[in-house]
Amino acid sequence: MAEFRRYRGSDLRTFLVAIFEHYGVSHADAVAEAESLVRADEMGIDSHGVAHIMANAYIPGLRSGEVDAKAQPEVVRQTAATALMDAHGGLGGVATTRAMELAIEKARSTGAGFVAVSNSRHFGAAAYYALLPVEHGMLGLSMTIGGLGVVPTYGRGRRLGINPLAFAAPSKHRHPFLLDIATSVVAGGKLELARMNRRSVPLGWIVDRAGKPTTNTDDYYAGGALLPLGGTPETGSYKGYGLAVMIDILCGVLTGMGFAASLGQTSARPHFVGAIDIAAFRSLDDFTTMMDEMIDTLGATEPAQGAERVLVHGEREFDAIAERTRNGIPLHPEVVDRLTSVAEAAGVPLPAPV
Amino acid sequence: MAEFRRYRGSDLRTFLVAIFEHYGVSHADAVAEAESLVRADEMGIDSHGVAHIMANAYIPGLRSGEVDAKAQPEVVRQTAATALMDAHGGLGGVATTRAMELAIEKARSTGAGFVAVSNSRHFGAAAYYALLPVEHGMLGLSMTIGGLGVVPTYGRGRRLGINPLAFAAPSKHRHPFLLDIATSVVAGGKLELARMNRRSVPLGWIVDRAGKPTTNTDDYYAGGALLPLGGTPETGSYKGYGLAVMIDILCGVLTGMGFAASLGQTSARPHFVGAIDIAAFRSLDDFTTMMDEMIDTLGATEPAQGAERVLVHGEREFDAIAERTRNGIPLHPEVVDRLTSVAEAAGVPLPAPV
Repeated sequence: MAEFRRYRGSDLRTFLVAIFEHYGVSHADAVAEAESLVRADEMGIDSHGVAHIMANAYIPGLRSGEVDAKAQPEVVRQTAATALMDAHGGLGGVATTRAMELAIEKARSTGAGFVAVSNSRHFGAAAYYALLPVEHGMLGLSMTIGGLGVVPTYGRGRRLGINPLAFAAPSKHRHPFLLDIATSVVAGGKLELARMNRRSVPLGWIVDRAGKPTTNTDDYYAGGALLPLGGTPETGSYKGYGLAVMIDILCGVLTGMGFAASLGQTSARPHFVGAIDIAAFRSLDDFTTMMDEMIDTLGATEPAQGAERVLVHGEREFDAIAERTRNGIPLHPEVVDRLTSVAEAAGVPLPAPV
Repeated sequence: MAEFRRYRGSDLRTFLVAIFEHYGVSHADAVAEAESLVRADEMGIDSHGVAHIMANAYIPGLRSGEVDAKAQPEVVRQTAATALMDAHGGLGGVATTRAMELAIEKARSTGAGFVAVSNSRHFGAAAYYALLPVEHGMLGLSMTIGGLGVVPTYGRGRRLGINPLAFAAPSKHRHPFLLDIATSVVAGGKLELARMNRRSVPLGWIVDRAGKPTTNTDDYYAGGALLPLGGTPETGSYKGYGLAVMIDILCGVLTGMGFAASLGQTSARPHFVGAIDIAAFRSLDDFTTMMDEMIDTLGATEPAQGAERVLVHGEREFDAIAERTRNGIPLHPEVVDRLTSVAEAAGVPLPAPV
């Protein structure tokens, strides 16, 4: 087992801000981008945190110009409750944070706000944005087109993105409800992990290039694809397929950027975020009281034979936040190596572990 | 094979309107309710059409008073983009149609409209409502809490509703995109069908009272439950579980009516509908042109080995509309018997088959 070292979240924020500033990003934008990444780590979404910084949507993109450090998201069209924002090729976390801030502002005045974002880059963890309205007593929704990797039901080859959807709602004394799911059976990260460890994957995750179910991850990388949520036609794969297309429509067709199959393999990404003000429907206090009741009821479900207990979405993430805020964020040695090389190239000191 | 007889949609509409009027429903409300039912049949959603009329949410409910024939949906709270509507125990199709009309009106003036409905009854097919905004160049969304029937991941017993979600978007020369799914692996109708035919169901649909997977439908009716979309934890059942809770929140907690587990087995239902105006984001013509491209791209996906072709959501329903508008709606002899007894009790003549 590789030895993880723990880093304080505040130290990682300061470090990332300095790195982004080094590559020409303004201080305010660097703070927004760093926050989206480190918060993902604090929630335990390690695949979408600082470990991701060497993906094209971040440092290499800033170096090559594929990501425009100076780009400022621009509202190109808006109504009282909606806006279309052009990210102009800038960092995804910056554009999506601004988009959600605008959605919250609109929800405060009209009850609901929805902002579609074009020409953005990978935005990290969908959960991060869905949680922003929760701080304001609102429901939050975020989605994006992910990498092309999913096969439509009865087909072969990749025609759908690994499209995530996140939804969050506040509670009173419990954790917020937080759903963050890819509309494929699993997200890409779990395949990558299985491949690295030379392990087979369960039947129902992937198909080979002929569209036939397989447990060998090599088949995925040789022209295969992930299955949509539901797995097979018999167990509802057209549902995951349809949810992926719904996200393609809300992000890609509504902005005009294109759907997953037309976008292809690029770091350019559209997003869709929304906020709904709970007070427009009923008192926030009554709402959050009922949320607590619901969370308690679900959590108290008698476990199935052999199972430990029933979890409610968000519990794991908020437990991780509590633990990692206290003890620091554990980083894999390979991630530390990655950050070390980023630090050296930018002449910015890497913080010491806890 | 039982012999189906075909009835003209217009005849069934006239018949149902007379039936509802007989039980005290106003003409305008009877037309709205009949339309939601017959249109479901035309789309091929037979389980939610006229066959459903003997469920408590319809004729028996009107007879017993469980459904209030005279109830008028009332907007009890609203903002520019949202409304909370109280259906006051009236017919679900009436309240939900009014709710969606209000959402469309709000979307026309602010870009987006969302209406939550409390104290309603079963609303029929979610697809019907999601399609209403499409006629106005808008995206449509509808959901409701279904009957208590789904087990949370790692649990036993029914804590979640068979909650459906529908989403629709217009195209230019193709059919509209139309997603209408239950967030369980399958909807209840498929189990009922398997039980009637004494057939086992695939592993991954249901669990027994101990929470263990089973293929015997008797186990479902003896305290078992449907699995959430995703089936097992390994293939993402927490995703279907979370989507079901999201719908509980938007329909039940936002209206204050309660979540699936607190509502229990009742015909009282909350709903949530929304409309988003495409023109608020980009030209409708550009949008629908890209929708056609997307539908063509998905439909042209090379089929998997042994499969015939890839379908796109909505194709089947709009093919059914074309065929059934031409040839009439095929009704099972048992459904005809049901309608005959309804006709006799109300003194309203059943139309002749085509």
